Amino acid sequence: MSPEPSSALLLGVCDYPEHVSPTLWPDFARQQRELGLSFVRLAEFAWSRMEPRPGEYDWAWLDEAIEVAAAEGLKVVLCTPTAAPPAWLVQAHPEILPVGRDGRVKAFGSRRHSDPASPVFREHSRRITRALAERYGQHPAVIGWQTDNEFGWGDTAQTYTPAARSAFQTWLQARYGTLDALNAAWGNVFWSMEYSDWAQIPLPGQAVAACSPSHTLDFMRFTSGVLASFQAEQVEILRDCSPGRFATHNFMGFFSAYDHYELSRGLDFASWDSYPTGTLTAIGEWQVMEPEVAVAYARTGHPDITAFNHDVYRGLTGHGHWIMEQQCGQIDWAPSNPLPAAGAVALWTAQAWAHGADGVAYFRWQAATMAQEQLHSGLLRHDGTPDRGYAEVQGIDTAAYPLVPVVNRVALLHDYDSLWAYNAQPHAVGMNYWAQTFAYYRALRSLGVDVDIVHPDADLTPYAVIVAPALTVMTPERAAQLEAAATHAHVVFGPRTALRQHSGRAQDGGGAGPLAGLLGVRPLNFDSLPAGLTQDVTLGGSTHAARLWAEAYAPQDTQVLATYAGGPLDGHAAVTRRGPVTVIGAHSDTLIQGVLGDVLHAAGIEVTPLPEGMRVSRRGDHTLVQNWTAETVTWQGHVLLPVSSLFIETASLLATPPERV
Amino acid sequence: MSPEPSSALLLGVCDYPEHVSPTLWPDFARQQRELGLSFVRLAEFAWSRMEPRPGEYDWAWLDEAIEVAAAEGLKVVLCTPTAAPPAWLVQAHPEILPVGRDGRVKAFGSRRHSDPASPVFREHSRRITRALAERYGQHPAVIGWQTDNEFGWGDTAQTYTPAARSAFQTWLQARYGTLDALNAAWGNVFWSMEYSDWAQIPLPGQAVAACSPSHTLDFMRFTSGVLASFQAEQVEILRDCSPGRFATHNFMGFFSAYDHYELSRGLDFASWDSYPTGTLTAIGEWQVMEPEVAVAYARTGHPDITAFNHDVYRGLTGHGHWIMEQQCGQIDWAPSNPLPAAGAVALWTAQAWAHGADGVAYFRWQAATMAQEQLHSGLLRHDGTPDRGYAEVQGIDTAAYPLVPVVNRVALLHDYDSLWAYNAQPHAVGMNYWAQTFAYYRALRSLGVDVDIVHPDADLTPYAVIVAPALTVMTPERAAQLEAAATHAHVVFGPRTALRQHSGRAQDGGGAGPLAGLLGVRPLNFDSLPAGLTQDVTLGGSTHAARLWAEAYAPQDTQVLATYAGGPLDGHAAVTRRGPVTVIGAHSDTLIQGVLGDVLHAAGIEVTPLPEGMRVSRRGDHTLVQNWTAETVTWQGHVLLPVSSLFIETASLLATPPERV
Amino acid sequence: MSPEPSSALLLGVCDYPEHVSPTLWPDFARQQRELGLSFVRLAEFAWSRMEPRPGEYDWAWLDEAIEVAAAEGLKVVLCTPTAAPPAWLVQAHPEILPVGRDGRVKAFGSRRHSDPASPVFREHSRRITRALAERYGQHPAVIGWQTDNEFGWGDTAQTYTPAARSAFQTWLQARYGTLDALNAAWGNVFWSMEYSDWAQIPLPGQAVAACSPSHTLDFMRFTSGVLASFQAEQVEILRDCSPGRFATHNFMGFFSAYDHYELSRGLDFASWDSYPTGTLTAIGEWQVMEPEVAVAYARTGHPDITAFNHDVYRGLTGHGHWIMEQQCGQIDWAPSNPLPAAGAVALWTAQAWAHGADGVAYFRWQAATMAQEQLHSGLLRHDGTPDRGYAEVQGIDTAAYPLVPVVNRVALLHDYDSLWAYNAQPHAVGMNYWAQTFAYYRALRSLGVDVDIVHPDADLTPYAVIVAPALTVMTPERAAQLEAAATHAHVVFGPRTALRQHSGRAQDGGGAGPLAGLLGVRPLNFDSLPAGLTQDVTLGGSTHAARLWAEAYAPQDTQVLATYAGGPLDGHAAVTRRGPVTVIGAHSDTLIQGVLGDVLHAAGIEVTPLPEGMRVSRRGDHTLVQNWTAETVTWQGHVLLPVSSLFIETASLLATPPERV
Repeated sequence: MSPEPSSALLLGVCDYPEHVSPTLWPDFARQQRELGLSFVRLAEFAWSRMEPRPGEYDWAWLDEAIEVAAAEGLKVVLCTPTAAPPAWLVQAHPEILPVGRDGRVKAFGSRRHSDPASPVFREHSRRITRALAERYGQHPAVIGWQTDNEFGWGDTAQTYTPAARSAFQTWLQARYGTLDALNAAWGNVFWSMEYSDWAQIPLPGQAVAACSPSHTLDFMRFTSGVLASFQAEQVEILRDCSPGRFATHNFMGFFSAYDHYELSRGLDFASWDSYPTGTLTAIGEWQVMEPEVAVAYARTGHPDITAFNHDVYRGLTGHGHWIMEQQCGQIDWAPSNPLPAAGAVALWTAQAWAHGADGVAYFRWQAATMAQEQLHSGLLRHDGTPDRGYAEVQGIDTAAYPLVPVVNRVALLHDYDSLWAYNAQPHAVGMNYWAQTFAYYRALRSLGVDVDIVHPDADLTPYAVIVAPALTVMTPERAAQLEAAATHAHVVFGPRTALRQHSGRAQDGGGAGPLAGLLGVRPLNFDSLPAGLTQDVTLGGSTHAARLWAEAYAPQDTQVLATYAGGPLDGHAAVTRRGPVTVIGAHSDTLIQGVLGDVLHAAGIEVTPLPEGMRVSRRGDHTLVQNWTAETVTWQGHVLLPVSSLFIETASLLATPPERV
Repeated sequence: MSPEPSSALLLGVCDYPEHVSPTLWPDFARQQRELGLSFVRLAEFAWSRMEPRPGEYDWAWLDEAIEVAAAEGLKVVLCTPTAAPPAWLVQAHPEILPVGRDGRVKAFGSRRHSDPASPVFREHSRRITRALAERYGQHPAVIGWQTDNEFGWGDTAQTYTPAARSAFQTWLQARYGTLDALNAAWGNVFWSMEYSDWAQIPLPGQAVAACSPSHTLDFMRFTSGVLASFQAEQVEILRDCSPGRFATHNFMGFFSAYDHYELSRGLDFASWDSYPTGTLTAIGEWQVMEPEVAVAYARTGHPDITAFNHDVYRGLTGHGHWIMEQQCGQIDWAPSNPLPAAGAVALWTAQAWAHGADGVAYFRWQAATMAQEQLHSGLLRHDGTPDRGYAEVQGIDTAAYPLVPVVNRVALLHDYDSLWAYNAQPHAVGMNYWAQTFAYYRALRSLGVDVDIVHPDADLTPYAVIVAPALTVMTPERAAQLEAAATHAHVVFGPRTALRQHSGRAQDGGGAGPLAGLLGVRPLNFDSLPAGLTQDVTLGGSTHAARLWAEAYAPQDTQVLATYAGGPLDGHAAVTRRGPVTVIGAHSDTLIQGVLGDVLHAAGIEVTPLPEGMRVSRRGDHTLVQNWTAETVTWQGHVLLPVSSLFIETASLLATPPERV
Repeated sequence: MSPEPSSALLLGVCDYPEHVSPTLWPDFARQQRELGLSFVRLAEFAWSRMEPRPGEYDWAWLDEAIEVAAAEGLKVVLCTPTAAPPAWLVQAHPEILPVGRDGRVKAFGSRRHSDPASPVFREHSRRITRALAERYGQHPAVIGWQTDNEFGWGDTAQTYTPAARSAFQTWLQARYGTLDALNAAWGNVFWSMEYSDWAQIPLPGQAVAACSPSHTLDFMRFTSGVLASFQAEQVEILRDCSPGRFATHNFMGFFSAYDHYELSRGLDFASWDSYPTGTLTAIGEWQVMEPEVAVAYARTGHPDITAFNHDVYRGLTGHGHWIMEQQCGQIDWAPSNPLPAAGAVALWTAQAWAHGADGVAYFRWQAATMAQEQLHSGLLRHDGTPDRGYAEVQGIDTAAYPLVPVVNRVALLHDYDSLWAYNAQPHAVGMNYWAQTFAYYRALRSLGVDVDIVHPDADLTPYAVIVAPALTVMTPERAAQLEAAATHAHVVFGPRTALRQHSGRAQDGGGAGPLAGLLGVRPLNFDSLPAGLTQDVTLGGSTHAARLWAEAYAPQDTQVLATYAGGPLDGHAAVTRRGPVTVIGAHSDTLIQGVLGDVLHAAGIEVTPLPEGMRVSRRGDHTLVQNWTAETVTWQGHVLLPVSSLFIETASLLATPPERV
């Protein structure tokens, strides 16, 4: 419980010295050190200060800011400033402005007003990155780099500029070689969408009605690649000029606009920006919880929502991620922005660590006194006094949070191709890739199980149970990998599994294509249920009500575990099992929890059903219990105050098999 | 009950052989024949296959597809492929792309990406139509033609291109002769909207706020005419090249964007595409039924909604319409897309026949394995196995559905001028032309009455009762026709009757203008009721709550049947009658049902009040009873299983006079 | 109670003789006189009749219309017709069309299709104004002028044309002198938004995400100034050509798009257009009343909503305003448009007078029989018969409404800078400047208190109680003025007071900046509460539930009156008082009412708590009691019929101190 300091959780803060008078800098640095912080993140968005006029650099202020921090022993994470191109660059090259799906140019005046497909913008991105990296790359206080900031924020990952269209056509030509191949892959015979010239191909989303999902899917892959190469150019320069420092990027929660695995390649680890109260409202439309439940979590966010993202971002590189921006007070971008509960900042920090975070930077040091984020809190108020989060950070003993590895035996598979293909045709209000995937994750967490969220093509040998909630896109290679996994692990699949080929088309011959053999079922029908309409499922003696989605199967030498009762699917299989493989076709939280509980039990994974709002997380041999509710909970002899954490002996956990369903 | 096969309902299917391997074609044709289908609809959207490059035709595949069908004795309905212009045409002539009301060009990538007002597009439409008709027009298997597909789909009937604006100005000049006449007709003195040059006239809908309803009304007439002439050019070519074959078009349910009577002129009969579960959700905003009622019909659609459209489309030409696309499984375009109930496909087919359909083509043979409609079902699944609808089609004995005429004594009047004028200024959330018209239709159907939906200028002599729910536009000629009708029939009018002249202006002198004498009332006030506010009406001893709309009248030598009680209209007439003419001013389902019941009774029309979800339809001397609910119903000694049909002896119907109101 | 006629309320009507046949004019004028009207408003929107072709004026019709009115002794208010530029002007100069925030040009076809920043449009505005004023400026019947009509209607106050952008840049340069000053004032170091060239500055609202509130705030000031100078040009011409006549403008209720104080400078008095049933629905999103309460007022509007606007518009110039358009039947622009209750027109007229109106013009004489407003009522119906409002106007004895001054001792401070700054970042769904300000006004009115709504920089010496609900923007000068006011008056402040400097930035040093000393509190935190989440406040023995907003303070030598209980603000001050200054941080109707009651009592202002829907208003020594509900109310011995008014002796009012809270 008392590791070497160097191996404990790093705390830091996002600071913008350029926003305040330099006379405050020394005091701020001293306070930061005294608060137990060990690093500051600097220079995000500061391009107009680094290069006030074209080619005219001003480093004096940043030199001083870094020296002041270093003087207090603080380390520095620097950011490439490309998320906020300066006005003079836009004036000289208005063609770098992004264009939205609606065809409107997005003007200067906030941030991310640039098209990553623009060769001109790319050139300036490389230039400012090199200038910055050359200046500070080898400074002893500088420990690492953040590339840009929140790629895709403000719906900017997909741009609709002439540059993007032309690059998309080139990308397609490189990928498909011939138009015949592209027309076949996209199924362009449908509605006479066949192309006879690469230059005919438009960007999707601007037609009379929805474009082909294959068109959309390839556009998402293309734009993801554009951002990945944009970042790779920066990383290459940073590696060149700043050896021995880490490179990371600060992603966002539940973000769909690019392949985060692709963008993490070449980074040392992934980071993300965690704003639990905001993310709670952002997913309101998913129908994952009743509105009154969402209100109950208004001041903490929901434990599984935050944990899910930690597990996603840890999984991108497979080890210790960072929280590059950690909410430490109220935010300013949700429809309403309630104050966090007392204890929430400590709760979030402890959870981040327990789910594998090695570093946590609070956003931000002092609340901004100007511009767009004036109503967003920091550790200090506008008047310089410590705000509510400050005291909570002060109370954190990082020694209690050693940087030991997270080792889990349960994997949940996650894949952006499947996400894009699923969400291009959700077919049911309230359903989408994230909602379906999260339902399985939440069920696992409610059973007290720790989860690795990994890519389906990753190494799956460490896992005893593999849950694939929504692997819509299935290739022969991926099917082979899953067949191999089933030789050592229990594998659970959700609805729409393997519905599509890599191209986004249905499998040749229908059904689950290359995965059909493993699943042991032939899909019969899927039922998309509007609000108010449910479909009963009987599993053993219990009945569960599927909502939003119900999928039925013809078993092929396969055991039927649950059957639909009543309705158009009456009597058909809802849950099947053949050996280690389980298929769940009905969307019901209780059914999913029950089936997963059985599978975990069969795999020898300890199951501990937990009350709502209470969660257990393990890192190494440390077991953290948290109560995210506003009430004191007594559980297995432990008293958990509202919004609090507790370390317990893992052995003390009573492993209760879930109610047999 | 066993007519000659040639005089029984024709069943067919929409097939897209170009979507699958030709090796499957012979088996498909054999299966189609064995299923009892007698025709296939082919070549819809197949322009890029017919003419892969400008002027370079490829007929080989279609030759073979037709021969394969013919070899099994199947007849063929061919489509002009103009709903999906190929990419090369758009590349060569980008000006043919449609522009939306928001000024944005709608790009290539789905379908209907063309402006029917474009002379260039028109030229290519004629060219491909002639090439196709010359090739197949006299093929013995080809029995008829579908022009284009679903005119106006994707909000494309109204385009805002320079070509459309220029053509609109020319059309206005031809219609009005002088600007003085146009300025007077539109009332352009209002807000200084007077024009002094034809070139000043803009397209409506792009101004600071709403344009004049007269401006909008003429724009709807103009665009309707553009589509009508677009189609007429195709029909002329088809008549020329393909004598003896029918020409039809597949319209859509509750579609407002053009005058369907105008577009039916020159066709042999009208067709429509019936998707009962989708149409149910599409009219959700009309407030015609409570949300929980809509959920109850989620798997069948509502009987009156589907029947209403059958009666509209039969009425366009006055005889046997076709269902050119009949839902036979779940669709993919509603917010949620539930599976149809068991029995629904048979139920829909029987209803279509009972309401006068001579042909029904299921959409589609095999579910598409690619592109936009992958999640839309067909008779076969992706994997080629028969889907749920297949067995229902197999069970249909078409001999039970002879093609005898539908003869009704009750007419409901329907007119697109009134629709456009009404909906340009609905004045009350939840009210529109369709909702008001449907309320009267539903009341008639709930009384067991069969209805012809006809144009007000049609021959009304066959009818004993004529219901005109929403004839907002009234000309002297139309008034004379209604006066003549009242000499032999009972006539019932709803609110807003005759509110406007042909120009969309209020009647000169106010009130009902030329119809005032017939109505026998002077309108006092109309009340537009927000949700939660109702207005009581007393009719005899009963009280009814008007919602959404209440209109009061000063009777002129006219009997007052119902009076408003309380509220601003207290004591004023809500329902009046003078001789054969009844005026209903209050929007209340129970009031409408009661008054109509009385009128029907007085006219000697048999009235059979029916339980919710149960409906009776007559064709010739065949009486079909249907239960559209999920429960078994026992009614007048007949046991009706859920979602089922039954033929009964008409004599067995107990004609119950409705509760006297 | 029987003043000279010349000193009684003037009634008039908006008439559009050009909409009807001149043969009707003499009868109309006679009827108007007989109805007791003394003036008509003419020529609004009539540009195309005044100048049918460029430079070709036609005055004959207007000459006659004025003579016909004058012949019956009616006075005339003329309007400059610039709210509806004619088609020939738009054709010749399409660049005068406004452009919306979405970048789309707003076309001809309704009204207000012009950019007030366009030099070309300005030139034509001056030209037609001079021609009209020269023609009629000295006509003896003409008593005054209305400039234009409803500036900003249809979201046209802010235009996004190249002319507007260029003028904005020029305006900024004049205001700030240097880009350094502008960059500092806006805080442009944030997100690298610093400008190095004036030409770089875009219009706000078209960027990737929200622009800086300072950017928005200056844009609102700029566009307000554009309209003010546009109007000033007209007023200068009117003064020149039409001496001795008044100049006014007809504003709209709760309108935010410009500074109404700025636009009233140079006018003789302000007018506004009062549509009580419409305004009720327009504020639906504010969450100021439950939906069922809104339904209860559907036929009258809410008394405080209408009174609030009367008090705003009286306060613009500090004396007798006019209602230039008074609803006298159902309107046509709300989602639903219920008929007014019987008595509502008389009720509204009496209230207008009691709140200081000197003139009321009903809108409109006869309902329009054409174009956009056909479904909007007038005093006469389409058929020329008197509509429901006519009889009510007939019953009004204007002698009972003498034009004595309104003298109040309670002021409510209102300021458009604060409005814009607040609404640029509302931070909580349902909260905005108007909703917060209105909550305080409503509380005062529910206590039977009459209120002057005045600008914070106005003369505050007449007041014993000053309520400043939402003075977000605070300058040193304004703070000094409030400190001076506190020497003679009790002053009450609401949440967010003094949060920002004039630039829209937070105060230097945070907190309330220059007002901190007077408030005696240091702000700790604000809590933004989503629907369903409340925050308890204890005040004495009572508990109140704050909703939407809760703000906590650290008192500095200041008494804490109320404290938060539970939640993140537990134990912190919610209401404080130091001497004459009270600060209320929690948004709770009952709390606000209670605290204000105490303050009024302490200030010696008579307090009379009133039942919902019943209100008392005083003008001079006349006390008017009104019942706005649909039920008869007995109160203090007075019987008030539904929707009715009563004069009482002020002495008979029982001044009840509100429940001590």
